[in-house]
Amino acid sequence: ARIVTLPGDGVGPEVTAAAVAVLKTVAARYEHVFAFEEQLIGGIAIDATGEPLPAASLAACQSADAVLLGAVGGPKWSDPNAPVRPEQGLLALRAALGVYANLRPLQVHPALANLSPLKNDKLKHVDVLFVRELTGGAYFGAKTRSADAATDECRYTVAEIERVVRRAFDLARDRRRHVTSVDKANVLETSRLWRSTVQRIAADYPDVKLEHQLVDSMAMLLLTQPNRYDVVVTENLFGDILTDEAAALAGSLGLLPSASLGDGRRGLYEPIHGSAPDIAGLGVANPVGAILSAALLLRHSLGLEAEAVAIESAVEQVLRHGPHSRDIGGSAGTDEVRDAVLAAIE
Amino acid sequence: ARIVTLPGDGVGPEVTAAAVAVLKTVAARYEHVFAFEEQLIGGIAIDATGEPLPAASLAACQSADAVLLGAVGGPKWSDPNAPVRPEQGLLALRAALGVYANLRPLQVHPALANLSPLKNDKLKHVDVLFVRELTGGAYFGAKTRSADAATDECRYTVAEIERVVRRAFDLARDRRRHVTSVDKANVLETSRLWRSTVQRIAADYPDVKLEHQLVDSMAMLLLTQPNRYDVVVTENLFGDILTDEAAALAGSLGLLPSASLGDGRRGLYEPIHGSAPDIAGLGVANPVGAILSAALLLRHSLGLEAEAVAIESAVEQVLRHGPHSRDIGGSAGTDEVRDAVLAAIE
Ligand SMILES: CC(C)[C@H](C(=O)O)[C@@H](O)C(=O)O
Ligand SMILES: CC(C)[C@H](C(=O)O)[C@@H](O)C(=O)O
Repeated sequence: ARIVTLPGDGVGPEVTAAAVAVLKTVAARYEHVFAFEEQLIGGIAIDATGEPLPAASLAACQSADAVLLGAVGGPKWSDPNAPVRPEQGLLALRAALGVYANLRPLQVHPALANLSPLKNDKLKHVDVLFVRELTGGAYFGAKTRSADAATDECRYTVAEIERVVRRAFDLARDRRRHVTSVDKANVLETSRLWRSTVQRIAADYPDVKLEHQLVDSMAMLLLTQPNRYDVVVTENLFGDILTDEAAALAGSLGLLPSASLGDGRRGLYEPIHGSAPDIAGLGVANPVGAILSAALLLRHSLGLEAEAVAIESAVEQVLRHGPHSRDIGGSAGTDEVRDAVLAAIE
Repeated sequence: ARIVTLPGDGVGPEVTAAAVAVLKTVAARYEHVFAFEEQLIGGIAIDATGEPLPAASLAACQSADAVLLGAVGGPKWSDPNAPVRPEQGLLALRAALGVYANLRPLQVHPALANLSPLKNDKLKHVDVLFVRELTGGAYFGAKTRSADAATDECRYTVAEIERVVRRAFDLARDRRRHVTSVDKANVLETSRLWRSTVQRIAADYPDVKLEHQLVDSMAMLLLTQPNRYDVVVTENLFGDILTDEAAALAGSLGLLPSASLGDGRRGLYEPIHGSAPDIAGLGVANPVGAILSAALLLRHSLGLEAEAVAIESAVEQVLRHGPHSRDIGGSAGTDEVRDAVLAAIE
């Protein structure tokens, strides 16, 4: 299998290296051959080539089986009015790969409940899979800007809604068979189309319970009743906000992975944390989010379920017994956590 | 002073009646004359007239000094694809009154910290004033709908951004002189205009500290560091989501008031809770959000600061010593809480 790595900016290279080390150990243990190819994206790509997603990077990703990304962005490239910005590379990559379904699983590890801002009784049995639409909505709609006004258009087609919602229902069948669809149908036309499309699709899944929530209510319910939810599906911008809110419950952003999938097997995998410029280069970043993203890569793009579980079990042991990185209250560096995961892989 | 009441749907009439009783007691105590006029809005208005904001209601509001609203909506009118919906009345009223700045203060009462999903150490010193833009953005932009697609346009002019941001900076001067502006400037053109406008205005307020946050980060920071924030200003849809998320921290939605202000003194005041159809008519709704909204009405529309403080102090005593309504762990009905507040007004 061919895996392209896009380490990107800040702590991206550090955590990506740790995830690659884990993939190499799994390859050796299970006798697979993974070919790795590193490419540029983000700020580092802008510095080297003037573009946040150089053509060579995109071409490599488009012919790979899977892409593992670190993080993009940093203070050096943070002016939102600059003509070329690191995030553009990430958005262009998502669009070019057609990875319309962004999966963000959320579980709160019992050993880390003390790190969560939420009371521990609220955290029991929290196990949510967010499915965020990733290649539509206001992120990719028409924009205008004049001296005295600006616009962003949020646009969704039925086909765009349907494919991501079907993915959510399919995923729910392997879980607790409960889908919560989030919109703002009392105000937005795109949300009304979203809701009626969801309603139509739900008829094909009579075994899955469907619930609708307005995005404002959902922002509240995630805090008051987080364990009520199984699969939560929503559009791009709502998903961006709600998944970050939910991530705060886990105690540290450093722990959480994501998978972005399209119609084929090719996928884009990234930890949900950002480039964390304040700790970049210090060797203290938590590699767990990136390592768990590598596990999702094995599962969804390479179909290697046992290997994915091997990584997840190893991470589980390390979270339970340590060593822990700084963000979760320990003092271990990135390499020490990586080595503990490597040692725990069966 | 002329006050129009719009009790609306669900528990709206119950909590509005309690707030009016409080205003009447204050009027008697401080020797003011308040004239009350009740009008229709929302589902009850649709049933009576076919319209969610009848012309008579709007005209009365436009010539009043202040408007006190209960809540709109309910299961009877909840089809988002119906041509006429209760929320349309509220949105039309906000637009017609030009109340572009929606103020939502958040404090967590120490006696109620046990009700919050957040750990109590996180809740210490939480005192945030949200200023949500209320008459622009995707709520009021052009919408289209065809068989296979829909669009919502988010549009902001510099003038729309400037007036609400100036309001936020002005309010910060009476508080801890810290403004956090929330946008999604790494993706949205309206957010880039928002950010550069905020930056320009900040130059007029060298005594106020300004911070920018992306909306996804802010959704997380509200949970991990809620006591870091003073005044938070943002656009309409982000404000809708973030203020509901923040409201969850208070332990119950039933406690929180809001004020919607324009350029003049006229304002629209409403508790942030909805119509709560499950408990409508039972006499158990918490009237505190509505009563505190009445206090904001006295402060912002009538300039009666001492009277506003008298209500707030009375509520403070009732929250400290009871009686408490069901949503905050007690068993008192709406009238019992109202009577306790009345008795505590000095
Ligand atoms: C970097 C940014 C463009 C991105 C997004 O908003 O999608 C990030 O916040 C994310 O959630 O992956
Ligand atoms: C009822 C609805 C239209 C409204 C809004 O979204 O503005 C409500 O959620 C609010 O926050 O006041």
